Amino acid sequence: MRCNENALEEDLERIPEKFWPRVLQFCPRPGAVEALRPISQQRPSGRPALWGEFLAAMAATGLRAFGTKGPGWLQRSPWAPLSAGFCSRGPAGAGRPELGPRLTSARQRDGIRIIVLSDPKKRNALSLAMLKSLQSDILHEAESKDLKVIIISAEGPVFSSGHDLKELTDERSPDYHAEVFQTCSEVMMLIQNHPVPVIAMVNGLATAAGCQLVASCDIAVASDTSSFATPGVNLGLFCSTPGVALGRAVPRKVALQMLFTGEPISAQEALRHGLLSKVVPAERLEEETMRIAGKIASLSRPVVALGKATFYRQLPQDLRTAYHLTSQTMVDNVALKDGQEGIKAFIQKRKPIWSQ
Amino acid sequence: MRCNENALEEDLERIPEKFWPRVLQFCPRPGAVEALRPISQQRPSGRPALWGEFLAAMAATGLRAFGTKGPGWLQRSPWAPLSAGFCSRGPAGAGRPELGPRLTSARQRDGIRIIVLSDPKKRNALSLAMLKSLQSDILHEAESKDLKVIIISAEGPVFSSGHDLKELTDERSPDYHAEVFQTCSEVMMLIQNHPVPVIAMVNGLATAAGCQLVASCDIAVASDTSSFATPGVNLGLFCSTPGVALGRAVPRKVALQMLFTGEPISAQEALRHGLLSKVVPAERLEEETMRIAGKIASLSRPVVALGKATFYRQLPQDLRTAYHLTSQTMVDNVALKDGQEGIKAFIQKRKPIWSQ
Amino acid sequence: MRCNENALEEDLERIPEKFWPRVLQFCPRPGAVEALRPISQQRPSGRPALWGEFLAAMAATGLRAFGTKGPGWLQRSPWAPLSAGFCSRGPAGAGRPELGPRLTSARQRDGIRIIVLSDPKKRNALSLAMLKSLQSDILHEAESKDLKVIIISAEGPVFSSGHDLKELTDERSPDYHAEVFQTCSEVMMLIQNHPVPVIAMVNGLATAAGCQLVASCDIAVASDTSSFATPGVNLGLFCSTPGVALGRAVPRKVALQMLFTGEPISAQEALRHGLLSKVVPAERLEEETMRIAGKIASLSRPVVALGKATFYRQLPQDLRTAYHLTSQTMVDNVALKDGQEGIKAFIQKRKPIWSQ
Repeated sequence: MRCNENALEEDLERIPEKFWPRVLQFCPRPGAVEALRPISQQRPSGRPALWGEFLAAMAATGLRAFGTKGPGWLQRSPWAPLSAGFCSRGPAGAGRPELGPRLTSARQRDGIRIIVLSDPKKRNALSLAMLKSLQSDILHEAESKDLKVIIISAEGPVFSSGHDLKELTDERSPDYHAEVFQTCSEVMMLIQNHPVPVIAMVNGLATAAGCQLVASCDIAVASDTSSFATPGVNLGLFCSTPGVALGRAVPRKVALQMLFTGEPISAQEALRHGLLSKVVPAERLEEETMRIAGKIASLSRPVVALGKATFYRQLPQDLRTAYHLTSQTMVDNVALKDGQEGIKAFIQKRKPIWSQ
Repeated sequence: MRCNENALEEDLERIPEKFWPRVLQFCPRPGAVEALRPISQQRPSGRPALWGEFLAAMAATGLRAFGTKGPGWLQRSPWAPLSAGFCSRGPAGAGRPELGPRLTSARQRDGIRIIVLSDPKKRNALSLAMLKSLQSDILHEAESKDLKVIIISAEGPVFSSGHDLKELTDERSPDYHAEVFQTCSEVMMLIQNHPVPVIAMVNGLATAAGCQLVASCDIAVASDTSSFATPGVNLGLFCSTPGVALGRAVPRKVALQMLFTGEPISAQEALRHGLLSKVVPAERLEEETMRIAGKIASLSRPVVALGKATFYRQLPQDLRTAYHLTSQTMVDNVALKDGQEGIKAFIQKRKPIWSQ
Repeated sequence: MRCNENALEEDLERIPEKFWPRVLQFCPRPGAVEALRPISQQRPSGRPALWGEFLAAMAATGLRAFGTKGPGWLQRSPWAPLSAGFCSRGPAGAGRPELGPRLTSARQRDGIRIIVLSDPKKRNALSLAMLKSLQSDILHEAESKDLKVIIISAEGPVFSSGHDLKELTDERSPDYHAEVFQTCSEVMMLIQNHPVPVIAMVNGLATAAGCQLVASCDIAVASDTSSFATPGVNLGLFCSTPGVALGRAVPRKVALQMLFTGEPISAQEALRHGLLSKVVPAERLEEETMRIAGKIASLSRPVVALGKATFYRQLPQDLRTAYHLTSQTMVDNVALKDGQEGIKAFIQKRKPIWSQ
């Protein structure tokens, strides 16, 4: 699943050569330069990204909040740029209309990557560009041992309002519509197929494909003022793809009431019915999400990756096949270096030291 | 799914010819005369239905309540017979013992059909006759664009007590028993396969196949004094067919506790575990159910039908197949006349005008 | 499913001959001597069990509590040994280090078998020996008409802590590890495949394979102070096999939060999400569990067995197959002697008399 083997090379081609050493110095991890890609991706003209702008954005990111109130996590522990192993594409490129806006931003530290949907003016609509930006941020160095867990969050009061309807009028071809839905489906499946757990951190309204995104994450934490809906039917566009994720997360009577009426459910209802893992007051959302992410980041990455892949693989199987498959996984897991380290540490009453 | 292509012709044959023009005048929609069928169905002798009785029943229906208290909906907006596009087979044929009683009654207005189980003295037992009457009312003009949503309700304090045990003694043959269970299963599958959403409106006790009927509907709204049980095991008849619907609606530990002990669960427990979509005080049951039905009736029928069929089709598939299938559905949905109308209306900030 | 046809013969071979008549006198039911087996099983040397010890254990069992407070059920109705149709292997063999300890104890009366995990010092770890002891107690006379329901309980404040990690170090071979996980999986599947309902009665902490055991039972009743976790990931050993049972009991977001973080959920959360059938205060746990078990024990065993097998068989099928299968089961059920007795008793308003 090394997804972007040539990304570094490709991106370097777009950057003035004199900046190359700096890139490699600031982003010592292979592929870190991928952080530049979304900018160039959004400019089909292929015009090279402005490196200076990238650096400015990097600096600015240190001061940025995700969501309206800003992350307590970052406030408590001030931003340290790449030298501290932290990458970002920074905030929307205010005042630079000649560049496409950056639709997501991503930062990473201590094994935790936060991807923020950053198009609040458009209610974080999952346009094709947004989907590709999100996909790129999720795939970015997916195999790096420095990545342990991903959080998907959003700027502004709407987590995401789903597809950008302007991309779905008959001014675009059916082939274009198909690309929109296929890309969306790929992003949703990518979340399950990704080696590390993906957590949705929701503070606000998540509708249609935005609700699907929440339902597709492995874990979902939401503020108690959040709500969730699949209102496509009001627009003559039944939320059939969101129904895939929703129908696997909540009882079908709940899913169908949501799909047929388009009416929202509260965070408490979403928790009760299995759409969410946890609900907390808004002021505790980041703290609780970071606590869970921090817990996961303290674990052995290969053990978690093996467990996640096996869980989704066994779930649709009959019981005997599922046990056959998972019994083998357990034997493999015991044989992992981290498996033996963990068991020995427990017996010796000491803290385990993971290989990664 | 045009189910009864020859129904009009067949029914007209049973009605004195001089009334035919009236039938066609009052029920201009093709197939509307089907409303007569249940009466003749219940008379294997094939004796023609009395047309005068039909008209009397129609008139009487305008005054009827469903449930013990009568529908606020009808009280607020007085009954208008066929000229207002409303069909019914009317109430139980009191005082006419030569006719089998009518076990369900059905009325329709503004896209909403209400089917009422109307055998409260027998606790609305799902006898073979009741099942066929229900099936007929669900199938009736299933393809008409005037039908947007179906509500299944019941008269009296018991929603339904399940099968009629007198039909299951060894005085009847195993073939007869098989017909009972197969017809019941067909009705339950019909609810899922029907193009419009089907809502159970429950005020009272629903047991065995009665509980199965609630579990089989797309949406279920119940009063907070309702309760649900699968007590067949007490009679030496394990609720295996109800277990199909129940096991797909609630967690298996809840289903098995119900199936093994026969003990009822409350409306609140049923809601918590996914058997119900919503619980309200008894005095608000009709209002809330009609609100949901009214919402659905205001939507585009082809969009809802496409969404419903796709939801049930994708649910048992693996994730990749489910997304492949639904992505194609989304493209088809966008291409529907009502799909484009809805999206354009949204962008133009106006109300959509559906084709049907 | 008569599993141990030669058990009586084999066990008798290990017991001094002079005690044989006594065994047959005290345990008149065929196979009752199997109660001795776990002792001999744990001694690969094949040294004969001491019969005197067996008898002493039997006597002692009458005074034993399961759990920390002791069963009110037994206190109310004092223990009557084999002559009252009650078998047990008794408590752990304190003070006899030359014998392996007995890891479970089992008693049976009035159709209810209670199996108690009896290794509280090791937090009722599911070692290979414990698993085999549990398996043996579940299989013991599985086909006897005197057995109607099984309760699995535990001694001490921990229901079970899961696998014995000392069996999973690299001092043991991968083949040994495989045997541990396969035996565990077999026990879990045995619970579903067993002809009578199996109830988990939980008072305390159930983790990893211990949580899996709770999730695998047909019904689970817990005290309100119980909690549930799958913390293997903390030890570098992801709970993949527990995830099979957990993932089929609770919504996947709940399962994954538990599996990825290892954090416990409360009894109330477990109830809300479907891991438990019922939660009661600790002091009412035995009373409520015995009430449910007593209810099941009053029913027709063949009817319950047919229903249980059919429920698990239809659950993974598509709807049409599931209804085809269960409709046939219903016809078969009606034709059972107890099916007709139950229906007739209901119609005649009398209590049914079951064949078994």
